[in-house]
Amino acid sequence: MPIISKTALFFAVLAAGPLAAQTRPPASPQSQIRSVLFRQQAAWNRGDTDGFLAGYAWNTTFVGDKITRGLNELRVRYQSHYPTLASMGHLTFSDLEIHPLGADYAYVIGHWRLERTAQGGGDSGGNFSLIFHKTEAGWKIILDHTT
Amino acid sequence: MPIISKTALFFAVLAAGPLAAQTRPPASPQSQIRSVLFRQQAAWNRGDTDGFLAGYAWNTTFVGDKITRGLNELRVRYQSHYPTLASMGHLTFSDLEIHPLGADYAYVIGHWRLERTAQGGGDSGGNFSLIFHKTEAGWKIILDHTT
Repeated sequence: MPIISKTALFFAVLAAGPLAAQTRPPASPQSQIRSVLFRQQAAWNRGDTDGFLAGYAWNTTFVGDKITRGLNELRVRYQSHYPTLASMGHLTFSDLEIHPLGADYAYVIGHWRLERTAQGGGDSGGNFSLIFHKTEAGWKIILDHTT
Repeated sequence: MPIISKTALFFAVLAAGPLAAQTRPPASPQSQIRSVLFRQQAAWNRGDTDGFLAGYAWNTTFVGDKITRGLNELRVRYQSHYPTLASMGHLTFSDLEIHPLGADYAYVIGHWRLERTAQGGGDSGGNFSLIFHKTEAGWKIILDHTT
């Protein structure tokens, strides 16, 4: 049986640290962005508009029929378009494609679908394109074009 | 009157070269992108679909009601939506905002308006968002979301 000195054991433990860390690589931009979108979807589906809006940068721009600028104006837009739980309905994102634009930006295209009662406004859906920016607070939407 | 040797004159001319060049700084990404859009507008308005499409990357993506992939598919889309000069009408881009995304990408939002005769389909218009990529052949649209 080999004799292992305390010093050798010490260095063996030191060396194991980084190796152990390497078994779990940091999440890719794609999976981080996908998580933001899943968190938005989950927040929406529990009626949590602020949780949904947490995916946006403070200086975000929303392009729809009109252009909405900044998170506060976007909050007002969502609150006026979706004032009740019934009008929020059940949101599903699908067909997500996430394309990096250099290290700090990415764009996403996908499809959204809103299942609602007739009273809530009926089913709705369409395509969206998003631009994400990697900020200190994580990946945030700086441009949302939804139709 | 100072005597200037041929050698001194030679170096003076050499030195003037770069200085002269500096008086005309290279165009900014914003002005280069604006030029691409103006060239597209001009091409459209003379019925030159290929000239218009020169603003797009070969692997571009177009998001409308459907998603169109690649320049060839986009050409087919434009030719089927706008088969005649009357249906192409007169295109004007306005309210252009150009935002760099790092050194090699930028996004643009703006408004498009198509003036057409009733026979051509009547007036039309809406918002668009574009993502440009700086390629060896200049700035090209890699994503177009038009509504």
